[in-house]
Amino acid sequence: MSNPDEGTLLTDLYQLTMLQAYFDQGMADTAVFEFFVRKLPAGRNFLVAAGLEQALDYLEGLRFTPDELEWLAHCGRFHQPFVDSLADLRFTGEIHALAEGTVFFPNEPLLRVVAPLREAQLVETRLINLLQFQTLVASKAARVRLAAGDKVLADFGMRRAHGAEAALLSARASYIAGFNGTSNVRAGMRWGIPLSGTMAHSFIQAHDQELEAFAHFARSHPQTTTLLIDTYDTEAAARALPPLVRTLAAEGIRIQAVRIDSGDLGNHARQVRAILDAGGAQGIKIFASGDLDEYGVRALLESAAPIDGFGVGTRMNTCADHPYLECAYKLQEYAGVARRKLSEGKANWPGRKQVFRRHDAAGHLAGDTLTLETGHPPGTPLIAQVMSGGRRLAPSPTLDQVRDYAQGQLASLPPALRQLEAGPAYPVAVADTLRELARQVDAKRQ
Amino acid sequence: MSNPDEGTLLTDLYQLTMLQAYFDQGMADTAVFEFFVRKLPAGRNFLVAAGLEQALDYLEGLRFTPDELEWLAHCGRFHQPFVDSLADLRFTGEIHALAEGTVFFPNEPLLRVVAPLREAQLVETRLINLLQFQTLVASKAARVRLAAGDKVLADFGMRRAHGAEAALLSARASYIAGFNGTSNVRAGMRWGIPLSGTMAHSFIQAHDQELEAFAHFARSHPQTTTLLIDTYDTEAAARALPPLVRTLAAEGIRIQAVRIDSGDLGNHARQVRAILDAGGAQGIKIFASGDLDEYGVRALLESAAPIDGFGVGTRMNTCADHPYLECAYKLQEYAGVARRKLSEGKANWPGRKQVFRRHDAAGHLAGDTLTLETGHPPGTPLIAQVMSGGRRLAPSPTLDQVRDYAQGQLASLPPALRQLEAGPAYPVAVADTLRELARQVDAKRQ
Repeated sequence: MSNPDEGTLLTDLYQLTMLQAYFDQGMADTAVFEFFVRKLPAGRNFLVAAGLEQALDYLEGLRFTPDELEWLAHCGRFHQPFVDSLADLRFTGEIHALAEGTVFFPNEPLLRVVAPLREAQLVETRLINLLQFQTLVASKAARVRLAAGDKVLADFGMRRAHGAEAALLSARASYIAGFNGTSNVRAGMRWGIPLSGTMAHSFIQAHDQELEAFAHFARSHPQTTTLLIDTYDTEAAARALPPLVRTLAAEGIRIQAVRIDSGDLGNHARQVRAILDAGGAQGIKIFASGDLDEYGVRALLESAAPIDGFGVGTRMNTCADHPYLECAYKLQEYAGVARRKLSEGKANWPGRKQVFRRHDAAGHLAGDTLTLETGHPPGTPLIAQVMSGGRRLAPSPTLDQVRDYAQGQLASLPPALRQLEAGPAYPVAVADTLRELARQVDAKRQ
Repeated sequence: MSNPDEGTLLTDLYQLTMLQAYFDQGMADTAVFEFFVRKLPAGRNFLVAAGLEQALDYLEGLRFTPDELEWLAHCGRFHQPFVDSLADLRFTGEIHALAEGTVFFPNEPLLRVVAPLREAQLVETRLINLLQFQTLVASKAARVRLAAGDKVLADFGMRRAHGAEAALLSARASYIAGFNGTSNVRAGMRWGIPLSGTMAHSFIQAHDQELEAFAHFARSHPQTTTLLIDTYDTEAAARALPPLVRTLAAEGIRIQAVRIDSGDLGNHARQVRAILDAGGAQGIKIFASGDLDEYGVRALLESAAPIDGFGVGTRMNTCADHPYLECAYKLQEYAGVARRKLSEGKANWPGRKQVFRRHDAAGHLAGDTLTLETGHPPGTPLIAQVMSGGRRLAPSPTLDQVRDYAQGQLASLPPALRQLEAGPAYPVAVADTLRELARQVDAKRQ
């Protein structure tokens, strides 16, 4: 995602200090780590997995550059034999994971790493960094999609996303979750995500007359023009449109839509719709933007505001109401022995785990069972191996395949989970075999 | 920051569609845009400017790559003469800005761009993306510094930062705001930010015995060991330490600190301090982490918890209580004529602006005046030119110089602004000349 030459030192210092201790002690057995979310953000009913594609890219590209090794050798914290040992470090392990787009719940592993200890440890920071953010955004954007029904949704949030990578990855994650497109041009070029855009207030302001600005833009984009009409007076701009639409139509130019970006969006939309319809411009759609999230979209649609599409930015891209997930990447097994930590409020289930999911007759999610990899409760297993020997087992699905799969997942949510407010917790049972393993691990520590 | 070959298409689609319309109309006069924050996040008293360095890097490197031009030519939205015109696009303008580390307030421009229209328009998205995020984090981290007094503060937030760039830039911004270091190794390599790190629970878990893990780590890092003591039972781990400390001391190894990462941090710190002191290990410091922000740090210090340093992560790096700033990049002048938009709730002051700041006898901030660039109210002007012809006028200050300057700025906050809760708004007067210009601009539009 970022410059690949920066990738491997994108980690916490303690990963490297621990690696030196492992090196000094010759600790090089196989480690098993799992990444999972501890609990849902307040008010949420489910999560949507995303970020696996970038995680696999990262693992396949893992290596220290000569510059990095040189810096490590001279930073005063590491001895030369250890630094030398890093030169040939690659990721050689196995990955098991939920497919991107899968609906999942707390304590269900999103990803399992099985690799020599130093590899599995080193990658912790960046794996969490990649997986938690896209999962966070996909889970938020899915709520916007559920609120919006079949209205058009465009990601407009690059400017207030937290840096370039956040902008790109939130465009990707929101598309997976059901957005129709993004304004982020690089995301369009990189992943083929449909691009969406209108015009800025500055375009209007740079002209002496608003109507002249509209005409100039339309003549430069004869088939894809959306006019921003709130720079000075929204309804006045709408009233001026029908004559312009007729003039432009005579030149073969079609105005697709208007955008409203300020004030009471629902009220403006109703007035603008009436003005446009009365002027014979029934074909022009209304697009709304400005501080929207799932609640804003729902309120506008519940008020029957005649809005055809929404630009959703900042609040979705930053997940403004809960901008992080309580998640962890934890050692579950080392050298063949199951492990778990017991820190207050942060204990986790040991061992290599699998999730089995049941559906009801209507095809809705009916309950999951968290069990050991070797378990066979009723249902369909969700976690599949995707990498062996540090290489993907198969080409990744296309982004549109992932998006289609995610839309199927959202369609399988039972009505209670589709609500924006928190409903009864989805049932995730913990298998007896897993409870028994936890008891054994704890008993060994006494 | 990110791969430079990705930089120029890191923009909103509408910047490019507007550029084509400007191209078609031959609109190429000088434009003046300013970036400012509309209002403070709830409960805040001030902001700290950050991100200028990366903004200037971006502007100096602005260019379309052949791959980008090829993509633009074939994406179906742009005509060839326009795409051809982009090949030689560089940023050739002037930048005036607040120095990084400056305390500032709503409506005070953080940055002004004076450039040919297409250049000034194109750069909007990425400039906002770079400036708002670092300013957001520096402003949050400054509050943590004010709450922490002279205690050690380390940025531990890479894993839940929103991607790689957010992790790097939040390490930088928090260091400017007064943090002592970061766990982010790449940030240390890139900017010389002091690195900080301890060990993960997985290190303890990978060993059969906690004490063996402690000894292994200490022998690999004889002068920089902080032991994580909450994996199983915090006080039990503390009780086992004094004998280990004596054993290691005989080998010339010094344990610097212990870290507590779960439970009631204040209560654990008191118990651990007593245990260590009773065991003769008075020299070992206590480091605390886990869900901390400025409020958590203040509560622990007010309770007199014997904590010497704090690891602050997620809530600072994501600015969890308000993960974005209400900010805008607005056209203030085009072709020599002042402009402003009037959208409801979003009107702004037109023209090229300057901020003059007054101090009281104690050296504390006493009031600002927002005026035209040509104004001369009492006080010291804050906005200075830093770029001409698309190139920096002088080498940038070092990061430590910026950090020192920022610490001086925080020291100049009057007591009411230093509180974590919102006090009376800091006085920012608007000069009569600016009000008069706004009246003239509006009158012209009637």
